[in-house]
Amino acid sequence: MPEFNRQIVLAARPKGAPKNSDFRLVETPVPEPGVGELLCQTIYLSLDPYLRGSMNAAKSYAAPAETDAIAYAGPVEIGAVMGGGTVSRVLESRADRIAPGDFIVGLAGWQDYSIAPGDAVHTVHPQDAPISTALGVLGMPGMTAYTGLLNIGKPTPEETLVVAAASGAVGSVVGQIAKIKGCRVIGIAGGPEKCAFAVEVLGFDVCLDRHDPELASLLEAACPDGVDIYFENVGGSVFEAVWPLLNPFARVPVCGLISQYNAVTPQGAAMGIPEVMREILTKSINLRGFMYTDFLDQVDEFRREMGNWVSSGLVRYREHVVDGLENAPRAFQGLFKGENIGKLLVRVSPDPTL
Amino acid sequence: MPEFNRQIVLAARPKGAPKNSDFRLVETPVPEPGVGELLCQTIYLSLDPYLRGSMNAAKSYAAPAETDAIAYAGPVEIGAVMGGGTVSRVLESRADRIAPGDFIVGLAGWQDYSIAPGDAVHTVHPQDAPISTALGVLGMPGMTAYTGLLNIGKPTPEETLVVAAASGAVGSVVGQIAKIKGCRVIGIAGGPEKCAFAVEVLGFDVCLDRHDPELASLLEAACPDGVDIYFENVGGSVFEAVWPLLNPFARVPVCGLISQYNAVTPQGAAMGIPEVMREILTKSINLRGFMYTDFLDQVDEFRREMGNWVSSGLVRYREHVVDGLENAPRAFQGLFKGENIGKLLVRVSPDPTL
Repeated sequence: MPEFNRQIVLAARPKGAPKNSDFRLVETPVPEPGVGELLCQTIYLSLDPYLRGSMNAAKSYAAPAETDAIAYAGPVEIGAVMGGGTVSRVLESRADRIAPGDFIVGLAGWQDYSIAPGDAVHTVHPQDAPISTALGVLGMPGMTAYTGLLNIGKPTPEETLVVAAASGAVGSVVGQIAKIKGCRVIGIAGGPEKCAFAVEVLGFDVCLDRHDPELASLLEAACPDGVDIYFENVGGSVFEAVWPLLNPFARVPVCGLISQYNAVTPQGAAMGIPEVMREILTKSINLRGFMYTDFLDQVDEFRREMGNWVSSGLVRYREHVVDGLENAPRAFQGLFKGENIGKLLVRVSPDPTL
Repeated sequence: MPEFNRQIVLAARPKGAPKNSDFRLVETPVPEPGVGELLCQTIYLSLDPYLRGSMNAAKSYAAPAETDAIAYAGPVEIGAVMGGGTVSRVLESRADRIAPGDFIVGLAGWQDYSIAPGDAVHTVHPQDAPISTALGVLGMPGMTAYTGLLNIGKPTPEETLVVAAASGAVGSVVGQIAKIKGCRVIGIAGGPEKCAFAVEVLGFDVCLDRHDPELASLLEAACPDGVDIYFENVGGSVFEAVWPLLNPFARVPVCGLISQYNAVTPQGAAMGIPEVMREILTKSINLRGFMYTDFLDQVDEFRREMGNWVSSGLVRYREHVVDGLENAPRAFQGLFKGENIGKLLVRVSPDPTL
């Protein structure tokens, strides 16, 4: 049994971009499971943009009462362990249906060891797919892409879809599902390597570099029939470039605004509310914020259909794995600088299935 | 047979609020119906806020290809007859199923006489309801309220709905349907007379005066459980007062922005896009622009259900009738100053059913 539990706690609420001193590594006793509980060792920790919101004092997402699956969205207290999705291995079980050696998906956060309830965990099986995918293409980011695109975006053949962060955990899946549905897919990503990945590996029709000063005109040229679906996950200047291209009856699922998360003052406000509202009105545009938890009743369908797409190679994915819990703060900071291609994960302890 | 046809044409594109000199009354020959056509005499002309958009050079609404019912939404050419919904009496029929003396709903615009196709008109019957209601509670404004509220607003019992222009053609119906569906209904209207009408006649729970400098705090006090549905028909400062009160999973049907239509520069922009997008994201808000024509397949259901509500007294309405085509420009200007209570109509020729 391990001697102590490394945890990364919130040391200070960031002003703007998070920095090393906003985090602190502490060592605490390894917790002991009570009756019906599990002692788990974290293998993979998921680093996602939404976690930036939990570092602020204000609540960053609406948490529906019926689930605590997004308890992480509330603010983390100073001194408390940073939250986050995890895949863990069960070391000790005091619950009936879970055995040591099982792998579970949970919200253990940034730490080596954690306690999980034995009756409400989701187990993953290495024979089905690599266990890390339960945090990416087959987990929260994949389900965000799947539910937002299918329920709100409602893609139909020949339509044009635009998605930014095209090589990221959500954007990469959005674009690939849209291709499966027969859409023309335009990605936006940071730099030539990501753009090449989106086109050559993921099969996007076009991918534009968000750093290009001519982004707006390049996007217009890439969308000769306008834009029917804009899957919004970045906000700011990309939103402003896409907005004028929206067609009548366009759909805009809003799952994230990563360009804004570190902003001390809001970024990119050349347009105002009245202009946007006028377009919403005159083009019958549907703009809808959502979390995957809004569609929790579709989780089985998602796992089945996405599982098939991934195993058949119709949906491809890439993971950016950083080793060592102590490197989580630095990796997290890199997420906002676009340093990762694909799903960003921290391997907290060795993956015994590899 | 009449000798000439009075028409009001667009003399100039308004800068800001329309004024008398933007319109001109002309006399032209009475048109003659061809085979399959009808010669019609206008009885009622509907004056609606959307017409302001048609006076600009740019298209003001998305016209779906499958219908020309909203051809009026495109810009009116200088010198062309102002568009608008009408109830007319058939004077001469060269079509099979329509006879002289029948009443039809159409888009004859601001003129005494017009030609209508005999095979695509909707007839109205005075024994069912006053023929004027085909332009109000049983017509486009009523269907705007009905389809937007039920399809996008999706009211459920105990929810709170806010609607502005509460005594107007759309707002008055929105609030009453919401009451039928069990909602708490907060109206906003201009002045004590309209507010009293909304509460005492229409049955709203509360109606606030939009001129009150304390509107935002009064609204907050009137909505102790937040706002679940904001039926947006005005924009500007009312939008800004309602926005912070929206609950998670709020729905915002957007059917109009009357506060903006005369604006040379956009009005009321204390909030910016980033703030609004953040709330859309974190509260899973659904904001959707629409026209009643987006739900044309529900027209029969609307006529049946709303007809029952009106005849049973569950939905009440008021009409503000101005006599004389020559008074249409002045009445239209008054629409933006809130001079009417209820549906604004011009009685172009005497109503033979009264």
